[in-house]
Amino acid sequence: MTATMRSAAARAVPDVLGRTRDVVQPALRTAVDRLDETSRAISAYHLGWTDAHGVPSQGNGGKAVRSALAVVSAQAAGAQPETGVPGAVAVELVHNFSLVHDDLMDGDTERRHRPTVWSLWGSASAILTGDAMLALAQEVVLDSGSPQAVPAARLLAETTRRLIKGQVLDVEFEQRDDVTLEECVEMAGGKTGALLSGSAAIGAVLAGAPAEVVDALAVFGEEIGLAFQLVDDVLGIWGDPVVTGKPVFSDLRARKKSLPITYATTHGGEPGRELAGWLAGPEPADETDLARAAALVQAAGGREWATAEAARRVAGAEQALAAIPAGPRGELTDIARFIVHREA
Amino acid sequence: MTATMRSAAARAVPDVLGRTRDVVQPALRTAVDRLDETSRAISAYHLGWTDAHGVPSQGNGGKAVRSALAVVSAQAAGAQPETGVPGAVAVELVHNFSLVHDDLMDGDTERRHRPTVWSLWGSASAILTGDAMLALAQEVVLDSGSPQAVPAARLLAETTRRLIKGQVLDVEFEQRDDVTLEECVEMAGGKTGALLSGSAAIGAVLAGAPAEVVDALAVFGEEIGLAFQLVDDVLGIWGDPVVTGKPVFSDLRARKKSLPITYATTHGGEPGRELAGWLAGPEPADETDLARAAALVQAAGGREWATAEAARRVAGAEQALAAIPAGPRGELTDIARFIVHREA
Repeated sequence: MTATMRSAAARAVPDVLGRTRDVVQPALRTAVDRLDETSRAISAYHLGWTDAHGVPSQGNGGKAVRSALAVVSAQAAGAQPETGVPGAVAVELVHNFSLVHDDLMDGDTERRHRPTVWSLWGSASAILTGDAMLALAQEVVLDSGSPQAVPAARLLAETTRRLIKGQVLDVEFEQRDDVTLEECVEMAGGKTGALLSGSAAIGAVLAGAPAEVVDALAVFGEEIGLAFQLVDDVLGIWGDPVVTGKPVFSDLRARKKSLPITYATTHGGEPGRELAGWLAGPEPADETDLARAAALVQAAGGREWATAEAARRVAGAEQALAAIPAGPRGELTDIARFIVHREA
Repeated sequence: MTATMRSAAARAVPDVLGRTRDVVQPALRTAVDRLDETSRAISAYHLGWTDAHGVPSQGNGGKAVRSALAVVSAQAAGAQPETGVPGAVAVELVHNFSLVHDDLMDGDTERRHRPTVWSLWGSASAILTGDAMLALAQEVVLDSGSPQAVPAARLLAETTRRLIKGQVLDVEFEQRDDVTLEECVEMAGGKTGALLSGSAAIGAVLAGAPAEVVDALAVFGEEIGLAFQLVDDVLGIWGDPVVTGKPVFSDLRARKKSLPITYATTHGGEPGRELAGWLAGPEPADETDLARAAALVQAAGGREWATAEAARRVAGAEQALAAIPAGPRGELTDIARFIVHREA
């Protein structure tokens, strides 16, 4: 991570998000309008367009970084922003399908400071709304009229498969105490890398770009995803509760097999073994226990590794963009910084 | 419904199901092999290929009528059975995605005389396995290499959207006591008609058939779906528990807004109003109550209407096939009879 990327300035919402949002939002609304009345209303709430009673609101529907990547991806391949829009709408729908299902599976009652879909409408509605968004994502790409609809839709389906795999591994890891670092990276690659990679590539696919451009953008997105997850995992232990909105030591409290924790238990010598023993022990733990566990992760090198690895991933991402024209490259880098360095 | 179609002979499993299963099953297994290890194992169990421990078994994975329709659909358009196979695999995956999610939403612990996915592996695994099958369905069509991949994948996505809408309405109706017959037919059209329609049409789409052939097959599948639902709803009240495997009067016990019940409450005069009052009343009801409610459905004309409507739908389905060549037409009719007249 460079000093610039750590700076407060990097936290400002980059202009590119506003610009791409203006092209994508109308198309996203048109797509959601195709859903049955109930799924449409619930999706509109989840996306921050209405309150729970259907009254239009200025709610927070997320920063739509994935659709921004898809639009700039088309421009990186020399096409107009509009070329990337069907891909942008589709990745936004896949992202939100996964959030609605994840919130239910994790039992989370709040997202973006609002009650989650399942907590308002029950689990059946959360399952069905997610299903509807996933099916709609494919429909949007297939109906785009793009001569590249098949490769774009294939990329979307493969991306979704990897995303689901990441989630499957996450659920599985909760039951296991022998998760390797490689498996943990694979899980993060699925949960976070896959869709950012697909988002960064799908615009170029719709633009009919050559394989090397598509691949470079896919690598860029994948690395950014891993970097984000590494930073997020560090914040999950040492983040300021005021900034993250989560309790201090939250990932240790939840005994989450995050990246720095898994590095520590698998590569961290004696402190790592002690940490592993603590993680396998009885819950709940008090604040002193948690502080001691966090110190063990640090002593075992988990924090240092995660921070360095995030920097390596960011460098890899920027390197992958070498052949992309300066304009889109700058915007992709802006989005990347924004993704990696959000703190909440 | 003709006398022939009521006969015991019509219950025999038609040869076409065995023939099409032999072409579809290897492709379905190849597709499922693409899934992550866990989703693959759970899908293999759900599809009847293994027991819960992953040991190969001869379990009952259903009769695969939807994939049979898709294969014969291609032949109805003059193509080889193989042309329909990607569509057949896809509709089978969509069907099973919806079963895995439905069993969870309905809290059903048994399907095809075996424990359901969620009851063995928990809700998160059921959600994720369903999601994985849905995404995979699209991937199979898109990877088919068919020049008709886009229209086939579009049909699949639209079909899925209607299927989900049917399920959404079903969930919604549980909370309402003013469901109209039209809404109830729309719900059944989504839950049962949409996927049978898509299955009957997708093979012809992959074969590049003209719109009138595709439309005729779509109508055929849709009507068969409604006919099945009507017959199934009659059995849900008056079916023999020994044959259906469900308790006597099961749909009345569950206060289900099935088609004959909704006909009765909305078009059934005084007995219909009495039935509506009973349905809105306190649960549970004893056997005498249930028998009286069943008598009210009958007195209100619900049973007669549903039986006559099923016959009209079957006639409409057969009529739609008028221009289809005799061989495939005979096989489609065989599958239709098998679907409409299963009794459990």
